[in-house]
Amino acid sequence: MSAAAEAATPNEDILLREDRDGIAWITLNRPNAFNSLSRPLIARLQEELDRMADDPSVRVIVIAGAGRGFCAGHDLREVRGNQNNEPFIKELVGACSNMMQTIVHHPKPVIARVHGIATAAGCQLVASCDLAIAEDGARFATPGVNIGLFCHTPMVALSRNVSRKHAMEMLLTGEMMDADDAVRFGLINRAVPAGKLDEAVMEMAGKIASKSSYTLKVGKRAFYDQLEQPDLKSAYDHASITMVENMAARDAAEGIQAFIDKRQPKWEDR
Amino acid sequence: MSAAAEAATPNEDILLREDRDGIAWITLNRPNAFNSLSRPLIARLQEELDRMADDPSVRVIVIAGAGRGFCAGHDLREVRGNQNNEPFIKELVGACSNMMQTIVHHPKPVIARVHGIATAAGCQLVASCDLAIAEDGARFATPGVNIGLFCHTPMVALSRNVSRKHAMEMLLTGEMMDADDAVRFGLINRAVPAGKLDEAVMEMAGKIASKSSYTLKVGKRAFYDQLEQPDLKSAYDHASITMVENMAARDAAEGIQAFIDKRQPKWEDR
Amino acid sequence: MSAAAEAATPNEDILLREDRDGIAWITLNRPNAFNSLSRPLIARLQEELDRMADDPSVRVIVIAGAGRGFCAGHDLREVRGNQNNEPFIKELVGACSNMMQTIVHHPKPVIARVHGIATAAGCQLVASCDLAIAEDGARFATPGVNIGLFCHTPMVALSRNVSRKHAMEMLLTGEMMDADDAVRFGLINRAVPAGKLDEAVMEMAGKIASKSSYTLKVGKRAFYDQLEQPDLKSAYDHASITMVENMAARDAAEGIQAFIDKRQPKWEDR
Repeated sequence: MSAAAEAATPNEDILLREDRDGIAWITLNRPNAFNSLSRPLIARLQEELDRMADDPSVRVIVIAGAGRGFCAGHDLREVRGNQNNEPFIKELVGACSNMMQTIVHHPKPVIARVHGIATAAGCQLVASCDLAIAEDGARFATPGVNIGLFCHTPMVALSRNVSRKHAMEMLLTGEMMDADDAVRFGLINRAVPAGKLDEAVMEMAGKIASKSSYTLKVGKRAFYDQLEQPDLKSAYDHASITMVENMAARDAAEGIQAFIDKRQPKWEDR
Repeated sequence: MSAAAEAATPNEDILLREDRDGIAWITLNRPNAFNSLSRPLIARLQEELDRMADDPSVRVIVIAGAGRGFCAGHDLREVRGNQNNEPFIKELVGACSNMMQTIVHHPKPVIARVHGIATAAGCQLVASCDLAIAEDGARFATPGVNIGLFCHTPMVALSRNVSRKHAMEMLLTGEMMDADDAVRFGLINRAVPAGKLDEAVMEMAGKIASKSSYTLKVGKRAFYDQLEQPDLKSAYDHASITMVENMAARDAAEGIQAFIDKRQPKWEDR
Repeated sequence: MSAAAEAATPNEDILLREDRDGIAWITLNRPNAFNSLSRPLIARLQEELDRMADDPSVRVIVIAGAGRGFCAGHDLREVRGNQNNEPFIKELVGACSNMMQTIVHHPKPVIARVHGIATAAGCQLVASCDLAIAEDGARFATPGVNIGLFCHTPMVALSRNVSRKHAMEMLLTGEMMDADDAVRFGLINRAVPAGKLDEAVMEMAGKIASKSSYTLKVGKRAFYDQLEQPDLKSAYDHASITMVENMAARDAAEGIQAFIDKRQPKWEDR
C-alpha cells in the first residue's frame, strides 16, 4: 500500500505540514483510519522530525490529527496481517519506539493538539510530547488489554507522566478517561472547549516560539538528561554544567541585558 | 497466640477468602485489632498470595478488612513485647516487606477495598496494591512519627504513589488525610459513598477479570519492570521485547481477530 | 558590597533568624531586591543551615521572605556583572546547588512560607524544602527562558516535585502559575488566605516540633535515601535496616509505651 493511498484523498500525503511564524504544524492525515500509526506513517513522522531538527526556521512543533480523532494507535489491520511475521513486528515496534524517543530528544519543543480520541500508541504520542492541550471532549485510553495485547510500549511514556495508580487503572481496565481525568492525572496540560483548541495551542506555541531557540534546545535536553541521573547530586552536577555553559552564551547575555534595559531581547537565531 | 485466637470468633480464620467469577476476595479478619498485621496475619497473607499465583481460577484479587477499618498497620502490642528482641523485629519487618513486594510482583492484579482507616503498614498495603477504591469517609495516615517510630517501610510504597510534598506531609505530621486528599494525591483511584463501595470494587474487578489472564500477567510484570529501568531507552528496549512476545501469543491473535470480527474474544485460560 | 548593605536597613542582616518553641524562623531580608539570592545571601543561608544541623534547640526550620515576595531567584545584576567571569559563575551555581541540597539533607524538617512571588531559584527553594505553604495570591515561575538563560538548576528540584508536563509548561513558557496550580501540581502542600499564612505555617511547624527530633532526623534522611535506590527491593532493604535501628531507639520505646498508656510521650532530646 502506498503512503498516498492511505490518506484522505489520493492527492494528499499521510502527513501534512504547515509552517507559520516558526511553528511547524504537523497533521497525521489518515482520517479514515483514525490516524493510526501505520508503518508508513511512522516513517513519515520520523523523517519529518529528523528534517526539522536542524532547521532554524522551526522553533516549535505541533502534532495534530485530521478527521474525527487525534490518533488510535497502531494500525490493527497491518498488525493482524503480520502477526506471525516476527521480523516485521519487531521492526514496527522498534520504529515506533524510536519515533517516540525522537520527540523526547528533539531540540524543538513538541506540543500535542488532541481532539476526539488518543488511544494506545496515540495516547503514548500525547505522553511523549513535552506539552499537550486537548479539547474538553477528548478521551484517552490504553486499551490493548481488551484485545489481549497489553500496551507495553505506550506504558513507558504514560507511566512517566502519571502516577502508578492512574497508569494501572488505564492499563488494566482499558477504559476511556475523559479530558478532566487527563488534566487531573497530569497527562495533559489543559483542556479547552473544542472551538478554542487551535487558539489555545497557537497561543502556547507562540509564547514558546518567542524564546531563544538555543536556550530551548539546551534546556529541553538538560531537562530529560537530569531526570535520568541516578541521584540528586548527579542531577545537580549535570544541571550546573549546562547552566554555566548557557550563561556564557550570546543569547543569555542579550536576554539579561534586555531585561535590565526593559526591552525585548533580539535572539541570535531569529 | 494461635492464629484462630486472633480472629473475630474462635472458629474463624484471621484471613478469609471467598471466590466468585474469578475474583478472590481476601478479608483481613482481626476486627478487634483493626486488622493490624500481626506476624501470623502477615504469614497467612503471604501463604494465600503464594497459593493464588499459579491458580488459573483466580483472575483478580481484592484485599478488604473486617470490622470498623481496613488496616491499622503493625500490631503494636506484638511490637512492644518484642522491642528488644532484634531478631524478631528484623524478621517481622522483612516478612512484611516481602509480603508487600509479593503484591507488586504478583501475576494477578490486586485491588485494595478501603473503609475506615488505613494507617502505617495499612496505608502501605493500599499503596502496594495496583489499584485502590475507598469509601468517601476513609482516612489515611503514616502516623509512626507520633510514637517515635518513623514509617520507614510504609514510605517506600507511599513515595512511589504520591509526590514528595504530599508524602512528606503525611510522614512528618502523622496526620490523617481524608479520601479526597488520597484521590488528589494519587494514592487511591477513587472514593465512593460507603454504600456503593462493594459495588464499585466488584465492577472494577469484574472488568479486569474479563481480560486475558496471560495478558494481565505479562503486562503487570512489564509495568513495574520498565519503571525500574535506569533510562528511557532501557525502558523502551525492555517493553519492546515484551510487546513482541505478547504479540506472538495465542490470546493476542484471538483478541485482535475478535476485535476485527466485532465479537467477544475467547481467552485461552477461561 | 557588604552583606549588611544589601539589607533593608544598614543595621539589619540580610538573613534574620528568630527562634520560638523549637522553631527557627529564617527570613531572607533583601526586600528591595525581592530577596534575590546574591552570593552573600547564599553564604549566610548555608552558614545558618550548617549551624542549625547539630543544634538540639532547633526542631523545625521555616524559610520566609521579607517585603513583597518570597524570593526572585538569583541576583541578575550580580550575574550580569560577572557574566564573562566563568570562575565566579561556576562558584555561584555550585554554592547555590549545595545550599539547596543542604536543605534536602538537613536533619531538621524545613518548611517554605511563601508569599508574593517565588521565581527561578526562589521556586527551586520552595521545591527543595520538605513542605511548603503559600498565601493564595502567591505565584510561581521558572522564567529563565525569558532571558535566554534556562532554569537548569531550578528544574532539578522542580521536576522532583511535579509531573513532566507541568514542569515543562513552567520551564518552556516561563509563565507565572498561581497558588491553585501549585497545589494541584504538588509543588506546595496548601494555599491559605494571606492573613492566615503565618498561623498555618506555625501550626504545621508546631505539630512537627512536637515529635521526636531523633525520629524526624532518621526518617527524613531515610526518605530521600530510599527514593534514590535503583529498585523497589533495594529501597525496602534500605528502609528495613533503618526501621530496625529506629525500633531499638529509646524514643521508639517511649513512644510506643506512651501510646499504650494513652499519655504524651517524653522525647529524650527535649
